[in-house]
Amino acid sequence: MPYLRNTWYVAAWAKELAAGVMLRRRLLDEFYVLFRDSLDQPRALVDRCPHRFAPLSMGKLIGDRTGIQCPYHGLRFDVEGRCIHNPHGNRKVPPYRTPALPVVEKFSAIWIWMGEPDAADPAQIPDFSFLSPDEHAVACDMINIASHFELESDNILDLSHIEYIHPLFSSDAVSSGDYECVTEGDTVWSKRHIRNDTLPTFLHEAFGLPAGAKANRWLNVRWDAPACLALWTGAVESGKSRDSGRETVGAHLFTPETANTTHYFFAASYPRSLGRIAQQLADDSIAVAIGPEGVFTTEDKPIIEAQAENMLGRDFWEMKPRLLSIDTAAVQARRILAKKIEREQAAGG
Amino acid sequence: MPYLRNTWYVAAWAKELAAGVMLRRRLLDEFYVLFRDSLDQPRALVDRCPHRFAPLSMGKLIGDRTGIQCPYHGLRFDVEGRCIHNPHGNRKVPPYRTPALPVVEKFSAIWIWMGEPDAADPAQIPDFSFLSPDEHAVACDMINIASHFELESDNILDLSHIEYIHPLFSSDAVSSGDYECVTEGDTVWSKRHIRNDTLPTFLHEAFGLPAGAKANRWLNVRWDAPACLALWTGAVESGKSRDSGRETVGAHLFTPETANTTHYFFAASYPRSLGRIAQQLADDSIAVAIGPEGVFTTEDKPIIEAQAENMLGRDFWEMKPRLLSIDTAAVQARRILAKKIEREQAAGG
Amino acid sequence: MPYLRNTWYVAAWAKELAAGVMLRRRLLDEFYVLFRDSLDQPRALVDRCPHRFAPLSMGKLIGDRTGIQCPYHGLRFDVEGRCIHNPHGNRKVPPYRTPALPVVEKFSAIWIWMGEPDAADPAQIPDFSFLSPDEHAVACDMINIASHFELESDNILDLSHIEYIHPLFSSDAVSSGDYECVTEGDTVWSKRHIRNDTLPTFLHEAFGLPAGAKANRWLNVRWDAPACLALWTGAVESGKSRDSGRETVGAHLFTPETANTTHYFFAASYPRSLGRIAQQLADDSIAVAIGPEGVFTTEDKPIIEAQAENMLGRDFWEMKPRLLSIDTAAVQARRILAKKIEREQAAGG
Repeated sequence: MPYLRNTWYVAAWAKELAAGVMLRRRLLDEFYVLFRDSLDQPRALVDRCPHRFAPLSMGKLIGDRTGIQCPYHGLRFDVEGRCIHNPHGNRKVPPYRTPALPVVEKFSAIWIWMGEPDAADPAQIPDFSFLSPDEHAVACDMINIASHFELESDNILDLSHIEYIHPLFSSDAVSSGDYECVTEGDTVWSKRHIRNDTLPTFLHEAFGLPAGAKANRWLNVRWDAPACLALWTGAVESGKSRDSGRETVGAHLFTPETANTTHYFFAASYPRSLGRIAQQLADDSIAVAIGPEGVFTTEDKPIIEAQAENMLGRDFWEMKPRLLSIDTAAVQARRILAKKIEREQAAGG
Repeated sequence: MPYLRNTWYVAAWAKELAAGVMLRRRLLDEFYVLFRDSLDQPRALVDRCPHRFAPLSMGKLIGDRTGIQCPYHGLRFDVEGRCIHNPHGNRKVPPYRTPALPVVEKFSAIWIWMGEPDAADPAQIPDFSFLSPDEHAVACDMINIASHFELESDNILDLSHIEYIHPLFSSDAVSSGDYECVTEGDTVWSKRHIRNDTLPTFLHEAFGLPAGAKANRWLNVRWDAPACLALWTGAVESGKSRDSGRETVGAHLFTPETANTTHYFFAASYPRSLGRIAQQLADDSIAVAIGPEGVFTTEDKPIIEAQAENMLGRDFWEMKPRLLSIDTAAVQARRILAKKIEREQAAGG
Repeated sequence: MPYLRNTWYVAAWAKELAAGVMLRRRLLDEFYVLFRDSLDQPRALVDRCPHRFAPLSMGKLIGDRTGIQCPYHGLRFDVEGRCIHNPHGNRKVPPYRTPALPVVEKFSAIWIWMGEPDAADPAQIPDFSFLSPDEHAVACDMINIASHFELESDNILDLSHIEYIHPLFSSDAVSSGDYECVTEGDTVWSKRHIRNDTLPTFLHEAFGLPAGAKANRWLNVRWDAPACLALWTGAVESGKSRDSGRETVGAHLFTPETANTTHYFFAASYPRSLGRIAQQLADDSIAVAIGPEGVFTTEDKPIIEAQAENMLGRDFWEMKPRLLSIDTAAVQARRILAKKIEREQAAGG
């Protein structure tokens, strides 16, 4: 299946792009170079000199970051990818260009638009304002998963799996909770609510529940195309109103590197109103989730990569998965994405 | 070329399948999980949950080994592969199933039937009663070879190679011995008889020959489809009857992992009537043959993998091998297998 | 694109082929065994026994190097690839043959002819007499590059890159020098002349220039199909005649291992008339160029392999390179090679 192109993908975390860094990253099969210009704005170019295809990222930033010089023959390109300097022969600057892609920094991430540049509207980026660093303590990291990126969306859209692969975060009641799939336009919600749950000690304390108390617990996942997910998890003492409970939120953002490999960008956020502890909580979440010993790395990744291995390159639907009620949200998200791709392909044809 | 499906392949040695073990093994391209049920009977299921394709072998055995629970979302399957438990939603058990394959434990091995389950008849397994542990001391092990499995059958069916690649087991006379290919139904025999041979000291002693004696020696190989071979090697003092000599026997059982990789199952057997030494002799044979320093590992495997490399993915017959008289048995075995596959394909079409 | 076959490729450096050595080397996708016969003449056979495809190079040289014995079943082949010994059955020698390819030792290298044997004429090997060991101190080595071999020819035919990737050998003036592409028959010259250059200290001394002197400098590259290049580099004090300057010469000989990997054979030569220092100079050139820390290894190879990675298996021309004046020679060479291949294919069709 082709990729959806007229959409925003996360290309990097903003913190990966320090001034002066040229980051070569493979996204949707092609290689891109990401860097900050002289105004610290992120920029993305196809990481391939139009002359002889050397990676620009192996060259150097020039003129206070107003462009890149190719490592191989010294052609220079401005931040829009236009050739601006040719040191050879008559030194005439040829009208060559490496494609520049729209990029914006928003919600602690660098977002890249893979379709028609004129159609790029940052307002279309789904709301991840909980990752805006002004009001929130944010921590983030990434890993690479050897699977198609939709297996990752599926994984987050059906959190019944936490009872089975994440004992640390689970209780026996997760899969027996109420489950609801809600579609709002092209946004899909997977909502899970567990009543009178006995949480594992770790979570019981994290949610500030009184000793011995039963809790009502919720796990709400929001999906937007192509694979941008937010997950709110919260708990409150049984019988009290949800507003009086505690809630944390994380972002799970998946960008295909290739058809068979996925960049998994994860961020955790805590309100700065919590004080100095907020950043520590966010940093701890990263370590627990996506660090080398984190649960995504040691528990989800092996299962998902084994799923991918079992598929032997075959298409998900052609393999006729035998679905359950818990798959409603994941299937809905897959259908919306497939329809968007179909429309895009039809329009391009 | 497709695989022959209506036949028994060795999936594992019986000893690999201790109670409680779930063994994921790739056979004929697909992944299977092997385990023992509550009655210690071996079982094989496609190692892929029908729901979302996670390997069942990453889950856990349930209910005194009456089934497997999927690691990902907790669906449970009985030993026949039928879904018996769904912890989600209304908990209704769906009529989902992962295919179960007929398996039997026989001759110290776990045999798996890859075709129509109804056609599976353990009586069709070739006779390897010399591997029955009751009467024989058996030792066994396996290695993986990066080649099509028929290159391995070819190797055993033409033992003239031992003069060239196994100096330890050879004498100058091996290739000059009498060679006979006998076909009995779909069974192929490659029989080699060497008269008045001077055996290497190692073998001379192993066969209990008097010092300085010349020996008559035989190497008889039996092949059955798809690639199940037995090899009897014996020697007797020249002039004496074969019955008064000593004979040892080994099994060479090849199962394709993929088109380009092969599981090589090898076993050695000595009669328990020899007493306590029998098991030691069998164990020594394994070490000498298929251990890290064994001759199969260090002498056959490099040659066969280099053959495969030289073939660059091309078909054996399309490469027009220039055959010799010594290839009669190997060619006969290849023809019988090809005919069986052809018949099977025709019947299925 | 297919390979040009009716041409000479470098298969090895002569020094790689000591008496008694059997060298297995992949060239134009296939595997060959190279060795010296009893007269020390180089020989090349397809490294694949016609019987069962085992590599002859894993066997042994026989009869004072009059042939090779197959490692697997002991068939013997003479230096022309004809079977001369069959130890099996009735011992009748079958009319089997592994193809022998014309090879000659010339200019310190072993050249192999990949086309019609009758058409092989060593006089067609381009003139690399500066590598003849009688009059020259020659040093040579090789590395493997993960790219199509034409990316390597391109690299040498356009030395404007040395200003960008080889600071050690460069000055700011290289790319501003005069550049000329001259075609003589099927030979392409790329000539570069830089006036009044300030050389880096290293080169200034190497060319024996007086302290503080400006220099005229030249870099002349000669290309012959398929990818045999010679590079003369020289310098002389500005205002003096070129004849009074110093010049060094090197050979850059590229042989495809596969479509995506290239054997890079490099040699440096100094006239023996320089005395004992000549060999030292040649050896130093190898270390500086193609040794583990050499500039080809650490500066060219990474760029060229990244170019290849960026091409993602696509064809050079289909990717529409946006060329510059400096590419004239490389394009000319590519066209001549393409035309030769086209003619050869047409003749064969």
